[in-house]
Parts: sequence; C-alpha cells; structure tokens
Amino acid sequence: MSDIPQARFAVIGAGIAGSTFAYYAQLETHPCIVLDKSRGTGGRAGSKRLPHGSVDLGASLISFSDESISDLREHLLQENIIARWQSAYVGVPRMSAITRFLLQDIPLYTDTKIHHLERRQDQWLLRDERYQAVCLADTLIIAAPATQAAMLLATIPNVNSLLQHANQAISQTRPQWALWVTTSKTQSSALMTCNHPILETIIKDSDKPGRHTDEFDTWVIQATSQWSQDNIDTPKAEVLAHLIQAFEQEVGIAVLNTGEPHRWLLGRQAMALSSKPYLWDDTRKIGVIGDWLCQGDAEGAMLSAKHAFETISKAYPFDQV
Amino acid sequence: MSDIPQARFAVIGAGIAGSTFAYYAQLETHPCIVLDKSRGTGGRAGSKRLPHGSVDLGASLISFSDESISDLREHLLQENIIARWQSAYVGVPRMSAITRFLLQDIPLYTDTKIHHLERRQDQWLLRDERYQAVCLADTLIIAAPATQAAMLLATIPNVNSLLQHANQAISQTRPQWALWVTTSKTQSSALMTCNHPILETIIKDSDKPGRHTDEFDTWVIQATSQWSQDNIDTPKAEVLAHLIQAFEQEVGIAVLNTGEPHRWLLGRQAMALSSKPYLWDDTRKIGVIGDWLCQGDAEGAMLSAKHAFETISKAYPFDQV
Repeated sequence: MSDIPQARFAVIGAGIAGSTFAYYAQLETHPCIVLDKSRGTGGRAGSKRLPHGSVDLGASLISFSDESISDLREHLLQENIIARWQSAYVGVPRMSAITRFLLQDIPLYTDTKIHHLERRQDQWLLRDERYQAVCLADTLIIAAPATQAAMLLATIPNVNSLLQHANQAISQTRPQWALWVTTSKTQSSALMTCNHPILETIIKDSDKPGRHTDEFDTWVIQATSQWSQDNIDTPKAEVLAHLIQAFEQEVGIAVLNTGEPHRWLLGRQAMALSSKPYLWDDTRKIGVIGDWLCQGDAEGAMLSAKHAFETISKAYPFDQV
Repeated sequence: MSDIPQARFAVIGAGIAGSTFAYYAQLETHPCIVLDKSRGTGGRAGSKRLPHGSVDLGASLISFSDESISDLREHLLQENIIARWQSAYVGVPRMSAITRFLLQDIPLYTDTKIHHLERRQDQWLLRDERYQAVCLADTLIIAAPATQAAMLLATIPNVNSLLQHANQAISQTRPQWALWVTTSKTQSSALMTCNHPILETIIKDSDKPGRHTDEFDTWVIQATSQWSQDNIDTPKAEVLAHLIQAFEQEVGIAVLNTGEPHRWLLGRQAMALSSKPYLWDDTRKIGVIGDWLCQGDAEGAMLSAKHAFETISKAYPFDQV
C-alpha cells in the first residue's frame, strides 16, 4: 500500500471539469492526481483522430462568457490553446487541446477506471474494477457525469445527500448520437441549429481555427435528444443511413466520406437543481463537480470546478506545499 | 430490441437469494430469467472445483431452522440435494448443488454482468457493461450483496428509499479471506469456531456428506473479519503463509496441499435494519433481497427471497401463465 501514488487531491475524470479543477489546484501548488477510464483526456470535450487531422465529436465550443473564468480564458488565449469562433471559443487545433494543456504538469493515469472508493483514517483509497488499490488522497473530487458519479458514491456508506443529488440528476441525462462526415468545399454556414426531427446541430468542424483543408469540409452532425433516445439501441449502420440522409436533405450537399456514428450515452445534461454549482462534504473531504451541476455545458463544467476549488482550498489554508 | 429474452421476473444474482426467489416463482408458473456475473451459480454459497472433487469456500452450511421454509427444506431432502450435518444442512455433494437444483428449469445467463437498469414504459430493460440490452422484464429483483445492489440502484433515477437502504448497509459488509488445505486423516472435530486473532472458523469439508476420501482430509479455513480487513491488500503468498501457520498451530497437524487464498470482498454481512426482510417498490416493480436484509446468513437469504415472493406475487393475482 505504501508504494502507491499519493496526493492531496485525487480527481476522477479528465474531462473539462476535472482538468480545470486540477489546473487551479496546481496553480496554488496543491499536489493532484487525475484518473480517467479513457485513453485520452477531454471526456465529452474530447476529439477523434482522423487520417487527415481530428474532429470534435462532442462539445463543439465553449462560450467563456462568465467573467469568473476570464483568467483561464486569457491564459488559454495567450498560449494559443483556444481561439475565437462563432461568438465563442474552441480548442486549437482540437477541443482536447484544452484539457491536455490544463493537465500538462499533473500526474495523469489514463485507462484507469475507478470502481470503488474507500475512506481509510483520513485518506481516500481509490480502487479499480479488480479491487486493486490505485492511489491515496486526502480529498476526493468526482468529476464525472451524474450516472457515473452516483455509481461511485453508492460504494461509500452514508453519503446520502451527495448520492441522492447525483441519483436525481440522472433523470436529466440524455443520450446523443453524433457523426462526422466530409463533403466537397461549400459556403454553407458553419454552425446550424436545426428544426428537424433527427438533426439538432450541424457544425462545419473544418471552419474552426486550425482545421482548414483545401480539399474538403469536415462536418459534425449531432442528433436530437428525442431521436437519440428513441434510437439508442438501433444498429449503427441504420443510424448512419438516417443521419446521412437527413444531413444531405438539410444542407443540400452530398456526403463524400464518413465515420462510424458515436453514441454518447451521457451526452447532454440538463442542469440539476443545486444551490451551488458543485457538491462538497467537508467532513469527509469529498467534492462532486461537473456540467450537470452548472449550466449543463462545457463552460458550466469549468465554472463548477473553479467555484468548487475556491471553497475546498480553504480547507488547506496554512499548509500548502 | 424485440429479439431479446423477456420474462415476468428478471433476477440479478444466482446466489441463494436469487435462486430461491426464482424457485418459488417457477412453482407458481411465473416466467423468470436469472442472470449472474460469475461462471456458475451459488454466489457466496458456491463451491470450488478441485482435482479430487470440490470444496465449499464460502457459506459452509444452512441452518434451515425457520419453519417458513420447511417446504423447501423437505423438497431438497427428498431430492437428496441437502443432508444433515452438524445440527444444520449442507448441499450434497457440494453447496452449489442447492442453487443448481433450484434453478434447473429456469433460463440462466451466466458470465452476464448487469451494469445499468432502465425503466421503459411498464418494463425493465437490463443492460450490460457495454450498455447492450440483455433482457426485458415486468419486475426486477436485485439479489446481490448490498454494495452491488447500491451500485445498480444508483443507475435508476429517484429510487431514494431503496438506494439509501442499500448504501447504508454497505457499512455492515466485511471482507473475509478463505483457504482450503488438505491434511492426513485425523479425528479432530469437524467444525471449530476459534478464539484466535487470525482464524474465525475451521471446517473439515471432507467430513460433510458426500465428500469423503480415504487418503486425506480437506479443510476450509475462514479468517476473522478484523484480520481480513487489515490484510485486504496483503499479497496472496503472505496471506497463505499466515493462514497455514495459524491452522497448523491450532489443529496440530501439518498441511499437505493447499489452494490459493480466496478474498471474499463482501464475505460477511451484518444484517441491515429493515422492517421487512426485503425491499419492495410497488410502483416501479422493483424488489431487493439478500442475506444483508435478513439474518446475514444463507438461511436469511432464503427467507428474504421467500417473503419477498409472497408479497410481490400478489401483484399478479389473476393473470398467471
């Protein structure tokens, strides 16, 4: 046990929320460990690698309209990690550049699914699916979608308030089918919100800064919540056919090439009712952050993390490393 | 979706509780499906196959002292599935014979870990870890240890009472290290409750009906809760050495052969405080059963299942198949 990594904060989830929390903690020299079940960072703000670059299949932009994270926005702009696009901001050359930058100096364990949480004296012990000890931390931060947060919290006895909160928020979670396609170059608008039974948003990904190609345009198609829910178990080939047909009708241009449809199980999250944009149990040193506690979007994930850190860091006022 | 198995009851867990529930449901011709994440049936009342037979590494006996399951006890005796031993009963020729017999006419899906539960109109949809649909049922029965029950319930929105109950019971769950060893034949007593810092119980498994061998005795060593908890992350080789040494001191006979120590993560369960020996949500047709709701032992698992079935079957009084 003594040879496993230890830190002040263990952050479960390397999406926008977890990465932002770790970034602010690092700024104030609190040692952090970040763990994610996926191969890379970004969570639903991750990017898919393609032969000709990459594409943002999940969160397509961040509004950065709230001034309480203007310090972070300016830092990311200065480092050329984000650029303005469509009255908001995007990562350059892909959305996952943001989480990658935020985590650059922080120990990151990918392909690590935390399954079980255990309070030992004054520390948290994190265990994987084989119940192996992964790391120890003074304070635990769960930065995962509501469903995964609820399943993790369910392994800790008597965390009623946090568990109930996460469990109730599940009913606000919606799946979303997404697909990337390429077409010949076109002058169509780059961001379309559709009024269509299948299509919610069409994004010309190659219009974003740093993604330009001369030969073709790359698009991301996001299906509506309702259609995604109704077709959650529909075979991918069928989903693909529906999405391509709808896209070609709506945009009036033929699809050249396409990926496989991606099913975001916890794609969209309506905001949970909460008096604060995070949850915090001061007695047991456990915090919960994420878009589902604040705005339901990528900026909300950042705000949740920032405000949570401001509160939680007060628990360590005198003994910073 | 229409091609997946459907039943009135989907029972998660093929241990004593789940198997008993399915048995009573089958007796009254309610169609059941039973699912288990393991390869076989029995759960903590399962048996480990050995070159020379098998050994009961978990629950070593069932008391069958409660008259409300005397019908089941008599049926199992008549069919030679159980036999008297040490003022209680054991499965013949192994404990897992009991769950195997109870489930003989019931569709059983092993190696199937249910991960996610979803209410769809008036049915439950059970999903595995890859979110694939596994089966549909009118009524869902969770027959798993408290920790696993809590994690499953956490995936259903707004099941506060059931979820809280399971979550609170986790604090009563204790791990247990167990080990089988062989020795030369001896006249030592067959069931020893120890007053020892490491050993809780020593059971001469080969003394049980149907396990006799002429060449050697087979034993099961069960460690105390406290020592198991303190050594939950101790390497198996070290646990093995401690258990063998303690056994040899206590019984005064040398170990000839041994298996690998088995770590029951949810081995022992002190009973949860509950007004009834099961949980039942009549609106959503979801029941929770198990030893942790009744007595904390194998008989309790049976009683929990039987009493739950009696209540739940009243929801289907007129339309039996």
